[in-house]
Amino acid sequence: MAEFALIDRIRARTTGRGDVVLGIGDDAALLQPRAGAQLVVTADTLNSGVHFPAETPPADIGWKTLAVNLSDLASMGAQPAWCTLALSLPGADADWIDAFADGFFALADSSGIVLIGGDTTRGPLSLSVTAMGQVDTGLALRRDAARVGDDIWVSGTLGDAAIALRAWQAGTLDVRQPADDAAIEFLRQRLARPTPRVALGRALAGIAHAAVDISDGLLADLGHICTRSGVGAHIDPTLLPVSAAARARVGDASAREAALRGGDDYELCFTAAPTQHDAVRALSERLSLPLTRVGTVMAGQGVHGAGSEPHAPGYEHFL
Amino acid sequence: MAEFALIDRIRARTTGRGDVVLGIGDDAALLQPRAGAQLVVTADTLNSGVHFPAETPPADIGWKTLAVNLSDLASMGAQPAWCTLALSLPGADADWIDAFADGFFALADSSGIVLIGGDTTRGPLSLSVTAMGQVDTGLALRRDAARVGDDIWVSGTLGDAAIALRAWQAGTLDVRQPADDAAIEFLRQRLARPTPRVALGRALAGIAHAAVDISDGLLADLGHICTRSGVGAHIDPTLLPVSAAARARVGDASAREAALRGGDDYELCFTAAPTQHDAVRALSERLSLPLTRVGTVMAGQGVHGAGSEPHAPGYEHFL
Repeated sequence: MAEFALIDRIRARTTGRGDVVLGIGDDAALLQPRAGAQLVVTADTLNSGVHFPAETPPADIGWKTLAVNLSDLASMGAQPAWCTLALSLPGADADWIDAFADGFFALADSSGIVLIGGDTTRGPLSLSVTAMGQVDTGLALRRDAARVGDDIWVSGTLGDAAIALRAWQAGTLDVRQPADDAAIEFLRQRLARPTPRVALGRALAGIAHAAVDISDGLLADLGHICTRSGVGAHIDPTLLPVSAAARARVGDASAREAALRGGDDYELCFTAAPTQHDAVRALSERLSLPLTRVGTVMAGQGVHGAGSEPHAPGYEHFL
Repeated sequence: MAEFALIDRIRARTTGRGDVVLGIGDDAALLQPRAGAQLVVTADTLNSGVHFPAETPPADIGWKTLAVNLSDLASMGAQPAWCTLALSLPGADADWIDAFADGFFALADSSGIVLIGGDTTRGPLSLSVTAMGQVDTGLALRRDAARVGDDIWVSGTLGDAAIALRAWQAGTLDVRQPADDAAIEFLRQRLARPTPRVALGRALAGIAHAAVDISDGLLADLGHICTRSGVGAHIDPTLLPVSAAARARVGDASAREAALRGGDDYELCFTAAPTQHDAVRALSERLSLPLTRVGTVMAGQGVHGAGSEPHAPGYEHFL
């Protein structure tokens, strides 16, 4: 199967948007930005064996490839609009492409983002997405906007993906298929199909000050907010939201440790003035999504735990 | 060297633009689109050993990575604005990154495009750029806009890059260093550092009907215009612009064959009404860039040569 046939196979799955003047098929796409909005652009790459286990099903790879980028748009408060996909494949395999597209477009269609271009090349499996969104001018959530006295909030539960990854490394979780055990299956889904918090991010514009998505672990990502905002943070580990599945799997202490340091959850961490407490609670109810206050922005620098020394940064992908 | 240190090394080379509200360093970049303009977006990937010889100097890789994307913006008539870079590297090598950046930013800075995001990951050498430009609403050059009776034009000379690639494959051209022979050095530069025709593309908005950049060979790329526009094309091979270096290297007949079928030149092919003949000539003079009429758009389909059968499509990267 030639490059053009692969592209056609993907193109057949794309949907339209009124602001896509010209989609896939020319040298470039032609798009109509919304008046009064700024453009939000992010790019993330997933490589097989580095960012996901090589045996991950292609549909899960498709989902996650887009999810990690939508999560970055969400953390800026942006509405997803368009994306490109650079797909490097070892061989031209129509079944693989179709399954990959199942996962990719399931998330794309439900998020309102459309694929408007890309490239397929032959090479080791690697997937790069550049995602574009729009946000009303001046309302973007930024890492540099935290203020001393802000509450620190996180969405969902933390540490699930890291625990799933460790279970896979230990041979007790199979990424290729659903598990019979409900707790393990919950954790597998959290690793394989993270939910980017797009609706939350949009709703936080006007409520939150600073935001970041948790891809490298709460300590590391909250650390970015602190560095960019010139502030410190105090976290109370006992407040960290951990799932029943995580606790059942590794116990309470390890679950909290994973919630502090584990990456790949793609939840949002944001700061908001204490006066926004009720607004955040109402948002949690409206979205049926737990939002948990885990600490406070302080003068100083670094992320501190209750009574402990400043924590070191979380893990990096490239060591 | 960790991922963040690599990103910092690249970030230090980026320049500003008034419309970059927030550049590298947050979850996403924040950009201010120009009023009255449409957004033009393209994405192209280069893999080592597939799209360039593995021993290509990193500065040339950096240049070409951006050049192939700028060429797509040029073919749409767009003004380059912003880009993202997904860089997959086998190791974290500061010297490699610095040399790569030398080539990448030499072209970026001279083209007015700024890097606003990206990702570095560990993996086989692969480079994906998504480039964004802007064009006045309604003025983009499209593949589907050729009209019967249009002149077909090409910029520069064709076939040089393909001849250089073949010489490298034959062991008579070293991609790693300048050649003593002036003709070979010219051809090497054409392969290593193609010049995206950005100024030409912008100036053609309002003059040309359809345009495409020549990445897969004139026959294949003009074929895309024909397919999308529902027309045919007649090419006179004796009119094809070939360089003195190409002719000196492979002789006249082979040079013309390379000009018809060879890829990687990144010149523009465009169609314009015969009434625009003088305007195109004037543009050629203003830009000091040869623009050569090579044929005519006709009713029908496919690309025909003088007295010959329709040509098959050019090569594809993914076979």
